[in-house]
Order: sequence, then structure tokens, then C-alpha cells
Amino acid sequence: MTLSLENFLSSRKELIEGKLPLYVSGLKGPASIKEAMIYSLSAGGKRIRPALVLAVLNAFGKREEIGIPAACAVEMIHTYSLIHDDLPSMDDDDLRRGKPTNHKVYGEALAILSGDGLLTHSFGLIADQQDISAEKRLALISELVKASGIEGMVGGQVADMQGEAKNLPLSELEYIHEHKTAKLLAFSIIAGAILAEASNDEIAKLREFAYHIGIAFQIQDDILDIEGQQSKIGKPVGSDETNKKTTYPSLLTLPGAKQKLEDHISHAKAILANINIQSGLLEELCDLIASRDH
Amino acid sequence: MTLSLENFLSSRKELIEGKLPLYVSGLKGPASIKEAMIYSLSAGGKRIRPALVLAVLNAFGKREEIGIPAACAVEMIHTYSLIHDDLPSMDDDDLRRGKPTNHKVYGEALAILSGDGLLTHSFGLIADQQDISAEKRLALISELVKASGIEGMVGGQVADMQGEAKNLPLSELEYIHEHKTAKLLAFSIIAGAILAEASNDEIAKLREFAYHIGIAFQIQDDILDIEGQQSKIGKPVGSDETNKKTTYPSLLTLPGAKQKLEDHISHAKAILANINIQSGLLEELCDLIASRDH
Repeated sequence: MTLSLENFLSSRKELIEGKLPLYVSGLKGPASIKEAMIYSLSAGGKRIRPALVLAVLNAFGKREEIGIPAACAVEMIHTYSLIHDDLPSMDDDDLRRGKPTNHKVYGEALAILSGDGLLTHSFGLIADQQDISAEKRLALISELVKASGIEGMVGGQVADMQGEAKNLPLSELEYIHEHKTAKLLAFSIIAGAILAEASNDEIAKLREFAYHIGIAFQIQDDILDIEGQQSKIGKPVGSDETNKKTTYPSLLTLPGAKQKLEDHISHAKAILANINIQSGLLEELCDLIASRDH
Repeated sequence: MTLSLENFLSSRKELIEGKLPLYVSGLKGPASIKEAMIYSLSAGGKRIRPALVLAVLNAFGKREEIGIPAACAVEMIHTYSLIHDDLPSMDDDDLRRGKPTNHKVYGEALAILSGDGLLTHSFGLIADQQDISAEKRLALISELVKASGIEGMVGGQVADMQGEAKNLPLSELEYIHEHKTAKLLAFSIIAGAILAEASNDEIAKLREFAYHIGIAFQIQDDILDIEGQQSKIGKPVGSDETNKKTTYPSLLTLPGAKQKLEDHISHAKAILANINIQSGLLEELCDLIASRDH
């Protein structure tokens, strides 16, 4: 039986949203920070990163259960990055997905520490997973460090801050998005592949696949900022232009950005066709990224 | 040949201070954040945490070299915690060891991200250490997560913040210091023991030893705040009283705190005497903790 992507995403979102708070509530620590961590972990979102880990395992015909710690770890990293990005000294956002941001509820100090706690424990989830080999756990941790540290997401965030309100060339814009967004999405795919015991060749192809869908994801984000509906994207339409952000449409025009999105999606699909897996879900996911409305 | 503790500490401090910046400079990432990370990593300090990793290896007669990644990892964690603790929304400190704090030099956003980067890469250092077994690396990562996350240092920092300007009972004060300070010092000792292939019994004893010297370390900190010299401790004498902080002397009187310090040091030494290692350096270290003037 083949699952539709819609069913897959909604059931895995539910699964992951059930697990995430348990990883925090089971820790010994002050109640206040556990509450703050769970507040942001439970604030919704598409849960696309954990779903990708499970979708890749599914594509290789493996048990998705072994991907749950890595899936929750990558969502913890994503969540910590949102908490820190929203701080007054960073993006200074009061709302995230329509709810008050962590620091608006718990104060800046606890928000910073909640982010630190989520980041720290994401590695613990993987290190303590007893049902996979030590070598696999280390490979996952090493990939997660590269994807989320200064060689990945944190580096992309720095470049993004430094590029604010500047006219950036396309190469710099791509650096930012590859690092700020694509590397963590790529981690999810590579984590699934490592857990599925994919060959090095398959991992290399999936890394390339992940790069294309990561960049496509970001281009669609920029397009939604122009064409989306505020009620669906959860922030005012046109905020990039107001903030004078360099975006794919600002560099390439809107039709140019749409063409680039199509190109990345085609490349991603061509790579998939070249790997011997049940690629249905992942192909549908490419289409979803290109056509999503939030 | 037995090394004196003084020679040991100064030579290992030099060794670690040579290695720390290399772990960051070798990463691919924006120059600005690498500079900010290295700024704080190079800001001096006693380097007691890395020295403990190496001292334990030395006590077991093992090669200290295999402890360098864990030693640098724990110093990165300590450094990230100082950067985040100094932020305006936390302790709001402008100076650290006589130098401007990270956010005073690089701004708050980059300071937060520098801390995040150091925290992330501390796990990478251990995960990528090729010359020890996968099992040992995972044991180190798992211990480091517990020592530095909400079950350890971050949890202690939360409790410390929430206890500010309140009269705390001794049990709460001990919770704070055990978590904020002792757990990370204990990590260093346990990491050395894991790397030295100590038995579970030896590790359990060393964990107990570490608890006593960690608490002793903090009691001496409180005593120095009363009796120390500003030029040596790097902050104004009497700041705890000004800030109405609950301290060991405030709860136990100054002689009472000194007695408690002695008790913890005696316990620590008694445990050491009961483990079959060359304990000279570690014994001297107990004395140093009890008598240090900064």
C-alpha cells in the first residue's frame, strides 16, 4: 500500500509532536526551563525536517521507528534556532506562528537558556539511542554538528545578519540559504540514509538531492512573501521588500525565481530517479515544496 | 619523575591554549564569528577543566594526548556559558577577566551565535576523534550533555537566576553549585577516567571525588569574594553581598564556610587514597582549590 504524502505528513507530524515533549519532560531540571522548552517545541509547524528522516527510511523500506531520535533531534535544533533568532538582539519578533515568541512569554534570559538546552539535548537524544550501532550514532552527531554549527545553520545566520539591507549578489544569497536552511534539511535526508544503511554513493546522491530541495524550499519562501496569503504564511506579505531584503525574486524577477525553483525541483527529481529506492513520497515532496502555500 | 602541580598546570594551559583556536580556525564559516569565538576562547583563565582531563589520564599512567579533544570540548562549553551569562539579559557584565565581554566587542547577536557555535562544535570535537573507540566517544558525549544541559550547568544557571536576591536554604544553594559548577568539573574528571579505561567502580569513586572538589571550588569562590584581592579575582570584592546573593559564608558564617570547604577537601582526598592510581597531582589539586587566591 502506498501512502499519500498528505497522510504521511499528517500522521508523522502527530507522531513527532507526541514524542518531542517527552524527551524534555523526562529530564531532571528546573520546571521553568522545561516548560519554556516544551512551549516552543509544541508551537506547531510543518515538522518537515523530522518527516524527511522518516520518509527516507520509508523509501529504503526500513523501520521508521529507528529514525525517531534523529527526527526529534533535528526538530529540537530547528526550534532552538527559532528561539534565538526571535530574540530582541536578533530579529526581535514578538510572534511566531501566531503565538508569542519564547522570550515574550518567559523573558530573554530563559529563552536563551531554553535554546541552549534544546541544542545540547539534541545531541543527547542521538548519543543515547541504544538500538543502533555506535558508529551510526557518531556519524549522525558529526553530520548534525556540521549542519547546525558555523559550517551550517549558525554560519548562514551570521551571513544573513551581515547581509541585511544590503544588495547581495546571487552567490552570497545562495550561500546564506544553503547554510541557513538547506544544510539542516539535508541533515534530515542524510540521517535517514545513514540509518537505512545506504551506500556511500546513495548518500552522495541524496546529499545533492537535499541541496536542490533545500534551495527550492527557500525560493518558494521568497515567492510566498510576495504572492502568499498572510493568514497562511503567518507573517505580513511583502515583509522582505519592506525590510529591503535581497531575495530570489529581487535578484531574478518573480518569473525568474519561479523558473529557478522549477530547475532545482527538476534536478532533485532527476537525482531521485537515479537511486534504487521507492521514491514516491520523496517525489511528491518535491512537488509539495514547489507548490506549498505556507 | 613527578611533575609539580604548578609545572603541570602551566604547561597544560599552554598546550590547550595552543590547540583551542585551531579547532575553530580550521572550520569553514564566516570570518566574523570565528574571530568572536576565538576572542573568548583566548581570553585566558586557569584552564582548570581541560587540565583535569589530562591530570586524570596522567594519574592512570595513560597518554594525555588522547584527552585533548575532550579537554578542549569542555573548555568550549565553559567559554560558551560565560559568553551567554555575560549578556545584558543575563548578568549584564561588561568585563570578563579584565577584558571587554564578547557582546561588548561583537554585539549581542554575534555573541549569542558565538556561544551557540562553541556549544555545537564541542560535540563535534569528540565525535570526530578518530583514535579512540566509537563507544568511548559516545560515552563522553552522553556525559557532556548531562553535565552541560538542563540536568547540569544550564539547569544550575536557571536555578541561580531564579534564586537571585532571595534567601535560599543550603539545599538550594548546593543544588545551584552542584549543577552550575561541579557537574562540568566532574565531566572533566570522568572524561579522563573513561579515556583511561577506568573500571566502573573507579569511575563511580571519581564521580564522588569530583562532586567534593566541585563544591569546594565554589565555596572558595564565595570566600574569595569576601577575603580576596580585587586585582587577583578580577572583580570587585564584596560583590555577592552588594547583590544580596546567598553564599556559603552568608548561610554558614565565614568560619563555617571554611570548615565546610575543609570537609569537602578531606572527603575528596579520602576517596583518592582509595583508588589505585598515582594520585599526587590530584591531591595537590585539592590543596590548590582550598587555598587558591583567584
